[in-house]
Amino acid sequence: MSIIVVGSVAFDSIKTPLGSAQRVLGGSGTYFALAASYFTEVRVVAVVGEDFTSEHEAVLTARGICTKGIRREKGKTFFWDGEYGENLNEAKTNKTELNVFASFQPQIPPEYRESEFLFLGNIDPTLQANVRRSLDGVRLVGGDTMNFWISGSRPQLLETLKLIDVLLINDGEAKMLAKETNLPRAAQKVLAMGPKALVIKHGEYGATIFFREGAFGMGRHPFRAPALPIEQVMDPTGAGDSFAGGFMGYIASQGELNREVLKRAMFYGGVMGSFAVERFGTERLRSLSRDEIEARFLLFRELTHLD
Amino acid sequence: MSIIVVGSVAFDSIKTPLGSAQRVLGGSGTYFALAASYFTEVRVVAVVGEDFTSEHEAVLTARGICTKGIRREKGKTFFWDGEYGENLNEAKTNKTELNVFASFQPQIPPEYRESEFLFLGNIDPTLQANVRRSLDGVRLVGGDTMNFWISGSRPQLLETLKLIDVLLINDGEAKMLAKETNLPRAAQKVLAMGPKALVIKHGEYGATIFFREGAFGMGRHPFRAPALPIEQVMDPTGAGDSFAGGFMGYIASQGELNREVLKRAMFYGGVMGSFAVERFGTERLRSLSRDEIEARFLLFRELTHLD
Repeated sequence: MSIIVVGSVAFDSIKTPLGSAQRVLGGSGTYFALAASYFTEVRVVAVVGEDFTSEHEAVLTARGICTKGIRREKGKTFFWDGEYGENLNEAKTNKTELNVFASFQPQIPPEYRESEFLFLGNIDPTLQANVRRSLDGVRLVGGDTMNFWISGSRPQLLETLKLIDVLLINDGEAKMLAKETNLPRAAQKVLAMGPKALVIKHGEYGATIFFREGAFGMGRHPFRAPALPIEQVMDPTGAGDSFAGGFMGYIASQGELNREVLKRAMFYGGVMGSFAVERFGTERLRSLSRDEIEARFLLFRELTHLD
Repeated sequence: MSIIVVGSVAFDSIKTPLGSAQRVLGGSGTYFALAASYFTEVRVVAVVGEDFTSEHEAVLTARGICTKGIRREKGKTFFWDGEYGENLNEAKTNKTELNVFASFQPQIPPEYRESEFLFLGNIDPTLQANVRRSLDGVRLVGGDTMNFWISGSRPQLLETLKLIDVLLINDGEAKMLAKETNLPRAAQKVLAMGPKALVIKHGEYGATIFFREGAFGMGRHPFRAPALPIEQVMDPTGAGDSFAGGFMGYIASQGELNREVLKRAMFYGGVMGSFAVERFGTERLRSLSRDEIEARFLLFRELTHLD
């Protein structure tokens, strides 16, 4: 089965305590697509500028990712310049140039229309809702958002949340969205806004999925997947998007949509996030093998399983 | 098998967003002893003042805990007054009166000497070392410390760490002790100081145990136990000490000292910590049953186990 991802394709200049990279291919849509491509067929909807070359495109097509939905506009591609200090959980943004992304109007190629899965990357919630409404054949919709939209476009975001099945956000975003400092209570409030399940990403501590009562089968307990303790984080950029790609990609690869599939997807999300941070930019995500992914999945199990 | 715990017995006045309690029985030794008492025979070494009544002592003896090592001195018992805001991870101390605890000199009753397990609660590292050296029959020594000793008594603490088998501290303490911001690297540095294993407690995100190469059997991977997402934390006081009590108590109850036992101990630590915060002070830890503990252990497994 295939998944459509709507998100950003960008160039990033990144500095971390272990090195730097200049204008490398990045963006939430790129990380998501690469991570998901190890599990299922991926179709990207994004916008790029004239500086996006066939070499850049080849990074995606080499992984079998369909780029028909990437529109080329006059001007430059979205550019982000940021750096991380010793605390790798928080980036300092030096420069953001939206460029062609500022007027992004996602357009779904006709060939994408039979896709059963959709991921709405972190873009304007009004655009997210429009995309969702235009794809009525979709079985499961995942989505992301951020503090910018939570505070700046709250009414629009609340409408969009009614159209999303699984929302993936981090601790701070969940608390901000729910206006609640206790995380499990925040989760319940977000679930009441619409999503059937909520994945809260805790960075180096893993992630928890909370389920709306009765959604995806019986049981009311959340499920927590660990993160790998990593001694050398080269570059945390894209870890959350890679988690989302592994999570949604695994789900799209399965026939069934039940709680056990979602639990395993949590582990695969963690696995792909852990690979992403081992090298700068998307480098590690370009050249993985399914064997490496399975080996790390077993490592994640070992990390938290009792015999 | 029995375990000796050397720590504080105190009175606490506590305020949280959900209520308050005045001068209730607390202290690291008390929480540890109560939590451990559900698994093994516990013997306390502590000092109290004249305000420690037979009713207070009965809280411990009702759980079968031996109080012969609790010395009664002229003066008042250690008193702590603190409060928590919406962020329950950090207490604001309003008042600390060390009282008789200021001149605490732990003395081990002769009857305690055949104990095989020892836990050195969060006291002056020089006292911790003296106790450890006086008990040469002990098979496994657990220990705790805090920022006050890490910064104020570093040389003494480094000596004591050579005598501790399993150190239990939180994220901030581990980073401070290792002078290292990356947690897995901090763990390796702390293990190089002496302990065979290091348990780092992450509060609401659970805890990770790191092993020194070759210690407690084969394998080099850490192990992570989750924490229960709790919507109503009444009072976080003593959660870490209750974790330590459940962890060490379970270990002391087992014949073998291997990695699998330590992993299960991590889960039991989390279980006891999760009970502790459900009520004010030690209330919840006084009246548990082994069935309730086993039921919650299964809940913890379910929280993180794939079928």
